[in-house]
Amino acid sequence: EGEALDALARSSSYLSGRGETKEFNAHDVIEECDELLRTIFFAVVRETAGDKFLGQLKSVYEASEKFGSSHDPKDFDAMQAMLETMEVDESLQFASAYSNLLNLHNISEQVANAMEERHRRLDDIPRGPAKTTNGAIKGLLRAGKSTEEIYSALAVQHVDLVLTAHPTQALRRSMLKSFGIIREKLLQLQRFRLSRYERAEVLDEIRSKVASAWRTDEIRRTPPKPQDEMRAGLTYFQQTIWDGIPTFMRRVDTSLLANGCPRLPLDRSIVTFGSWMGGDRDGNPYVTASCTRDVVLLARVQGVNLLFRAIQRLIFDLSMWRCNDAVKALAKDILENSETDNFTIFEERKKRNYDDFWKAIPEHEPYRVILAELRDKLYNTREALQRCIADNDVNIDMNDETIIRSKDELFAPLVVCYESLIEVGDAQIANAYLLDVIRQVQCFGLGLVKLDIRQESDRHAEALDAVTRYIGLGSYLEWSEEQKIEFLTRELESKRPLLPSDLECSDDVREVLDTCKMIAHLQQTCPGALGTYVISMATSASDVLAVVLLQRECGCRKQDLLRVAPLFERLDDLNDAPRVLRQLFSVKWYHDHIAGFQEVMIGYSDSGKDAGRMAAAWALYDGQERVVAAGKEFDVALTLFHGRGGTVGRGGGPAHIAMLSQPPGTVNGSIRVTVQGEVIETDFGEKENCFHTLDLYTASVLEHTLKPPAHPRDEWRRVMDRMSEYSCAHYRKTVFETPDFVGYFAQATPGAELGSLNIGSRPAKRKPSAGVTALRAIPWIFAWTQSRFHLPVWLGISTSFRRLIDEGELETLRDMYKSWPFFEVTIDLVEMVLAKADPVVVAYYERALVDPKLHDFGASLRGELQESIDCILAVSEHIGLLAKPEKVEANEAVQVHKKLAHKLHKRSLYITPLNVCQVRYLIAARALENEEDGDKLSMQKVKITLLEGYPFQDYNYKGAVNDVLKITMKGIAAGMQNTG
Amino acid sequence: EGEALDALARSSSYLSGRGETKEFNAHDVIEECDELLRTIFFAVVRETAGDKFLGQLKSVYEASEKFGSSHDPKDFDAMQAMLETMEVDESLQFASAYSNLLNLHNISEQVANAMEERHRRLDDIPRGPAKTTNGAIKGLLRAGKSTEEIYSALAVQHVDLVLTAHPTQALRRSMLKSFGIIREKLLQLQRFRLSRYERAEVLDEIRSKVASAWRTDEIRRTPPKPQDEMRAGLTYFQQTIWDGIPTFMRRVDTSLLANGCPRLPLDRSIVTFGSWMGGDRDGNPYVTASCTRDVVLLARVQGVNLLFRAIQRLIFDLSMWRCNDAVKALAKDILENSETDNFTIFEERKKRNYDDFWKAIPEHEPYRVILAELRDKLYNTREALQRCIADNDVNIDMNDETIIRSKDELFAPLVVCYESLIEVGDAQIANAYLLDVIRQVQCFGLGLVKLDIRQESDRHAEALDAVTRYIGLGSYLEWSEEQKIEFLTRELESKRPLLPSDLECSDDVREVLDTCKMIAHLQQTCPGALGTYVISMATSASDVLAVVLLQRECGCRKQDLLRVAPLFERLDDLNDAPRVLRQLFSVKWYHDHIAGFQEVMIGYSDSGKDAGRMAAAWALYDGQERVVAAGKEFDVALTLFHGRGGTVGRGGGPAHIAMLSQPPGTVNGSIRVTVQGEVIETDFGEKENCFHTLDLYTASVLEHTLKPPAHPRDEWRRVMDRMSEYSCAHYRKTVFETPDFVGYFAQATPGAELGSLNIGSRPAKRKPSAGVTALRAIPWIFAWTQSRFHLPVWLGISTSFRRLIDEGELETLRDMYKSWPFFEVTIDLVEMVLAKADPVVVAYYERALVDPKLHDFGASLRGELQESIDCILAVSEHIGLLAKPEKVEANEAVQVHKKLAHKLHKRSLYITPLNVCQVRYLIAARALENEEDGDKLSMQKVKITLLEGYPFQDYNYKGAVNDVLKITMKGIAAGMQNTG
Repeated sequence: EGEALDALARSSSYLSGRGETKEFNAHDVIEECDELLRTIFFAVVRETAGDKFLGQLKSVYEASEKFGSSHDPKDFDAMQAMLETMEVDESLQFASAYSNLLNLHNISEQVANAMEERHRRLDDIPRGPAKTTNGAIKGLLRAGKSTEEIYSALAVQHVDLVLTAHPTQALRRSMLKSFGIIREKLLQLQRFRLSRYERAEVLDEIRSKVASAWRTDEIRRTPPKPQDEMRAGLTYFQQTIWDGIPTFMRRVDTSLLANGCPRLPLDRSIVTFGSWMGGDRDGNPYVTASCTRDVVLLARVQGVNLLFRAIQRLIFDLSMWRCNDAVKALAKDILENSETDNFTIFEERKKRNYDDFWKAIPEHEPYRVILAELRDKLYNTREALQRCIADNDVNIDMNDETIIRSKDELFAPLVVCYESLIEVGDAQIANAYLLDVIRQVQCFGLGLVKLDIRQESDRHAEALDAVTRYIGLGSYLEWSEEQKIEFLTRELESKRPLLPSDLECSDDVREVLDTCKMIAHLQQTCPGALGTYVISMATSASDVLAVVLLQRECGCRKQDLLRVAPLFERLDDLNDAPRVLRQLFSVKWYHDHIAGFQEVMIGYSDSGKDAGRMAAAWALYDGQERVVAAGKEFDVALTLFHGRGGTVGRGGGPAHIAMLSQPPGTVNGSIRVTVQGEVIETDFGEKENCFHTLDLYTASVLEHTLKPPAHPRDEWRRVMDRMSEYSCAHYRKTVFETPDFVGYFAQATPGAELGSLNIGSRPAKRKPSAGVTALRAIPWIFAWTQSRFHLPVWLGISTSFRRLIDEGELETLRDMYKSWPFFEVTIDLVEMVLAKADPVVVAYYERALVDPKLHDFGASLRGELQESIDCILAVSEHIGLLAKPEKVEANEAVQVHKKLAHKLHKRSLYITPLNVCQVRYLIAARALENEEDGDKLSMQKVKITLLEGYPFQDYNYKGAVNDVLKITMKGIAAGMQNTG
Repeated sequence: EGEALDALARSSSYLSGRGETKEFNAHDVIEECDELLRTIFFAVVRETAGDKFLGQLKSVYEASEKFGSSHDPKDFDAMQAMLETMEVDESLQFASAYSNLLNLHNISEQVANAMEERHRRLDDIPRGPAKTTNGAIKGLLRAGKSTEEIYSALAVQHVDLVLTAHPTQALRRSMLKSFGIIREKLLQLQRFRLSRYERAEVLDEIRSKVASAWRTDEIRRTPPKPQDEMRAGLTYFQQTIWDGIPTFMRRVDTSLLANGCPRLPLDRSIVTFGSWMGGDRDGNPYVTASCTRDVVLLARVQGVNLLFRAIQRLIFDLSMWRCNDAVKALAKDILENSETDNFTIFEERKKRNYDDFWKAIPEHEPYRVILAELRDKLYNTREALQRCIADNDVNIDMNDETIIRSKDELFAPLVVCYESLIEVGDAQIANAYLLDVIRQVQCFGLGLVKLDIRQESDRHAEALDAVTRYIGLGSYLEWSEEQKIEFLTRELESKRPLLPSDLECSDDVREVLDTCKMIAHLQQTCPGALGTYVISMATSASDVLAVVLLQRECGCRKQDLLRVAPLFERLDDLNDAPRVLRQLFSVKWYHDHIAGFQEVMIGYSDSGKDAGRMAAAWALYDGQERVVAAGKEFDVALTLFHGRGGTVGRGGGPAHIAMLSQPPGTVNGSIRVTVQGEVIETDFGEKENCFHTLDLYTASVLEHTLKPPAHPRDEWRRVMDRMSEYSCAHYRKTVFETPDFVGYFAQATPGAELGSLNIGSRPAKRKPSAGVTALRAIPWIFAWTQSRFHLPVWLGISTSFRRLIDEGELETLRDMYKSWPFFEVTIDLVEMVLAKADPVVVAYYERALVDPKLHDFGASLRGELQESIDCILAVSEHIGLLAKPEKVEANEAVQVHKKLAHKLHKRSLYITPLNVCQVRYLIAARALENEEDGDKLSMQKVKITLLEGYPFQDYNYKGAVNDVLKITMKGIAAGMQNTG
């Protein structure tokens, strides 16, 4: 049936390997990719699982399709009936099949996005509102900004993307890899002309990857270590980011030059990367001081490897002899004091097995002399780092001049070469690969990313408490905030040591101190490896001062102290932030120490959990303004560090919108943003998307800095204040004060079953206690997503909007939506999530899982959902969810609307059956749990035909039920990813 | 002027980055590439050397163009006059500019070839006579062969491509690299749709590479070491061959499957690679025993690196748990006796800094368990090899089970995995990347290539002589052949050692013995690293026996003895070869030892030097038949090892033709062929060409084996006998017996100046003595190519053909041309070279360099040239050189003719000025040499404006003259490369 596949590809308009044309239609691309992947998948399924199972798959699909178009409950029941007939091992396989289909569908969408992006750049289709740096520059020029203004803003702006391991990073690496290759091959089918054989082989390879994804056990059996997460994160640098940065920078240069500006300056990078993997110890006991050390060294080895290859290639390139005096002097200097004679140089390099240039480089190739020495130093650096990794007692020797000890030891010689080439008239060559390497050195330094350290504020207070009690100053924890600040200030100003070397304390405190000692150590032996110390759950100024003091007491020299960023997570802390910052800045020692720069992190996810999204969104908007204002009072420039939750929004991609929704004056040229787990894959997994991501952030920051959005009108603020007050009150009343809620949550969602999913190295529960408060933000949102209820997003909207409308604010609200980007974004994001909510599925979860006593509570919640939709539509004046009447000519409006609805509709054809499947096994799992003779049934061996030979001998019914649940959770999660 | 460049690319039909279309015209592609590269080059020249010089370049170009179309001596003189006005430093720059223009032109041709090849595979243009394996299979099926026949022939056939360092491998690696990138970018411009920015950046990069090629000192200042040559050779494996082989094998499989045949067998490879780099010590004193060791170890490190990466990727792929019992057992066995606990595994792998999978792999991933162990073993092998490279006393420990000691230790586990995947129904996955890796392991083993050892026969005789004299058996050199054979046979049969441990001997003999000891050593510690021992200048059976004996006496175990291949280089040795082989095979010990297989190498280049091409070509054809026949008498299957001279022939590429011109029955399924220096770049430098090369050889061998060409008729043999007798007699009379010839050669060509060109690690002269016999074949042919006379190719044709035509054999000759491929090929090759001969230039060299006494001798030689052309045209019935009236419809004939002539014409526009330039400085160089106060002029400092700052302080007039000569030689050589 290779033929049928070939015929299918040949007859398709995009996947036939006839090379790409001008016209492009994302909808058709998705259709054709879907059809191809589905055909392949079914062929694989038939071959491995047999026709009977394939039939079941298809009939459920048709049933789901019928229900999708008729919305008739009878069709729903027909579909449900089909699924009831499956044995547990068929369900297992069914769930796995649909989860694969969803992943394959996601690939189709990613492919369509990548292609749409390409066609935009080829001007085949008009680009929407300006979303590239180039576009931003043009837009600003049109807006009357001069090129100097634009250049000087762009030249100093800074976007720092912080990669974090997201606990639900669900797909195993090998499956991610297979899907990556499938994506790559689909792109090849569209872009290149292929001969019959090439096309056959491409289709073959897609097939074998679909097969291996299907045949791999997609449940991760052992939790990953932080080092594993780090390794995973680093592969993105190898694959896309390392080369993506210079390509992007070159593009920015091109558009600057096109507008008569010079290139971006060499001595800084407008984009850098940070990481939390192996640094974030908040609630992750595996992230220890030695783990942090491993992670730093590993990133460094990786970085040095990439630099080594870059320098090696430069040696080839810079074979010319013309140079200026600086290069001549440097080359002479190197040749003079390399006291080894040529023979040993030859032998030495032979040993190192360099690609080339073993012979000592003659002085009439001055650039090579310089670069060969950099190569030797990088080689030695790598060896030195390896030794450090191999033995915890070995450390980098900072007096060793045969290694590269800091970024600058690499940067300076390269710039000398660069300026020399320009001076002798080889600007052409200077601005070729050499410039790329300089950009890479500037952006990535020696270690690719700067690692942030994150820890909870309590841990520092406990550490100081252990110290003050030990030396008899009393108990730090019992002091008032003033006493703490007064004490911390006094200690920071005095040169007297505080930390006794024979302190007795708990292991937790020991770990906090070891981390600070490790920070002191890494700051000296691996300069530039660490970024910011983030304090989660920060509530007061002493939280910050405590960390500064702890660092110093553990051996940090003044110039090695990490800047400390408080993370205000809960709403109340957020509202209190300005006061805390004022208190902090009025500590003279600290005000001088930070020299006018303070970084503040504002959390998204947690605050949504405790006040509902609207209140959280407004609190964040308002909070940012007030903290920036607080900083300005002490003329401290604030850099806001955004820990962003979900990923790409509707239409133009999130960052842009997210940026627009920043209050004016809170960006001014520099922001730090976290990029969570699976967003890393979509934003950086593929070259085009990587480019697009960098382009987007840079453009948005540039615009927001030079053309900040207008300030909202005061009456809009008052409306927002009242709105968040109403919604927050209603949210908390429902979630924290309504007794039925806990029961409803525990029954209507798989929240309770989440813990056992071992996704990510971080345990799901904070300190274990029942109830909602104990749940972390991510599992909380994750649970509601499973039943497609998304309650945390909209709860409180209906009551607050209703009251405002009753108070005659409808026009104001509409006005706010039309002309206040922040409000527009917030509403759109809510609308987008509402579009994904499926009341039918929610009702089904209720019917099947919630005991009748709570049914009317559930009904009222579903009522509020409907209410919220109406309010959102009323305010946004959309004729339907996601149906925005654009400034359009006639015919275009209709198909935009269908496009989106169509996309969601496509997905839920796969998701709904998974929901049904999940409900069924939630019932089974819970039945097992509260049956006092549970073990009789749960332990009896199930003969699972498709799994015989599986190396897990003790596979029983309970295990099977668990696995079905895990897979449905992953599938639904994969399905709920935001749309492209 | 970036714009102008962009505009130019945009307006071109192939280079505008609009993606590729169906229609393709090689001529236009070359035109457009030429124009683009030339525009870029001129822009670079203007920027760096100024307008004045650019003007000179262009005016010489126009003058050369005028002369090219008018052939009017006055135009020639006008051009010559322009060149006379240049100072030596302008000439230096001029020569360098034209040499660059030629290299750029060559790139255009390579690009056109690569694209033409692509369009053929896309069926855009009809493929000429079948030239792919796929085509060959179809052809054979049409010819009535059954699929079983084809499969069983293909499955056992063997093509061994032996890479040798060609002494004139003139371009420095870095320039080769730059040109490689230019080639790549031109292909991108044609194949892909590029946005305005992408196109701008591609053009930018072409520009910077053109600039860096231009700005690099293209004269290699220090001769390369054999290890350098080896490194250079190995890079082709990294870049194209490593991935090229599985792609090619997959393609062969696809066409076999398409014809209902199974895949090629796993346990052998139809293509393998050999190398002489670092093994060929014939006339190269730098190739010592330790050099051979280095080269073997280096290739192994390289191979192990590539295998390591392949296995690493396989670990990702084979994540599934289903397997058969063999895999289960193997995985269990590995897990059981890996006595290290998980923690150390984790730590150990962390130390090794593997990409992933540090944790011990659980047994439910059985393939990964197996592959992870292979990975560890490969890692250890690499470390072990590094230690051997670093310290000559350290060797591979063959009892060390933690390393991979032979290819099979890698191959066997992979096949187990392969069969297991197929058994459990994952054939799809088995035949994906895993199959590729198995192919690579089979083809490349651990060391990528098998190194041949080559040494002159005399050296072995001297070595044995030193031994026999030392132990008082008399002097081996003074024995007759019978005595030698009788002695060697007796020693081979006896177990008594012959080599005394305290032998006194010369260093040369010492080196021969050290090499044999090294062979013994490498055969044990690096199995599969060595190939054949080639004896150059072989003349007798004792030459072969001597090498076998020397190997054994130096410690080779019977199963480690390298097979010995005699190389019959001179015509007389060639004719005597069958007798020698009979004598050899009648030695019982040897006949049993070779177990029915003998390899014989037949040399091309040298024999042409001593008898002229026609006699050489015929002697080779005839010789092959008779040696194969001699083998058959003793039922010994011969494998002929072809040391091929020049590269790709006309039209369909050489191998095919070369193959056709093999006598029937001399191929039968296996051949070894050398691939010389710069042919490696064109045949393997680029992915398409690499694929095309493998495809070509396989197809030709397949056809020649299953559909051998017809035997020539006897009267054709007699005609050939008389022809080679006449031409050989005339050739030797002119070259070796005409006293004027030596003078003429020394004056009319730069033969004498060649020595100083340090091209290649091998010194140009054999033992230094005056005259032609001392010259090696390559410098000999190289010298005549410079003045575009190509005398060694045609000398003797005119007299021999004339006599045959006078004897009324014209019709026979025409008949032979039409229906005897061998004769057709030989004539076409001569014709092709004649088309490159330029009598005007030759006359000019004569006029300017040869003293008048020899003018009429020169005139007679040029007369013979013209005669030869007429004879060739008479026999081939072409209306003009290279104008073959194909079986054509009307309009096609005309443009084929113009195409070729046009190509040559394009080149000579650049070459002729270089000739003029060369003549001028040959006069200067010779004037310096025989002027008794030479040093006054030659030493005076020339102020060379364009070179100030050059780090060679002592740069004087003589040096400048030399450099001009070196560059013109390289340029003309680059121009004379065979056409595409």
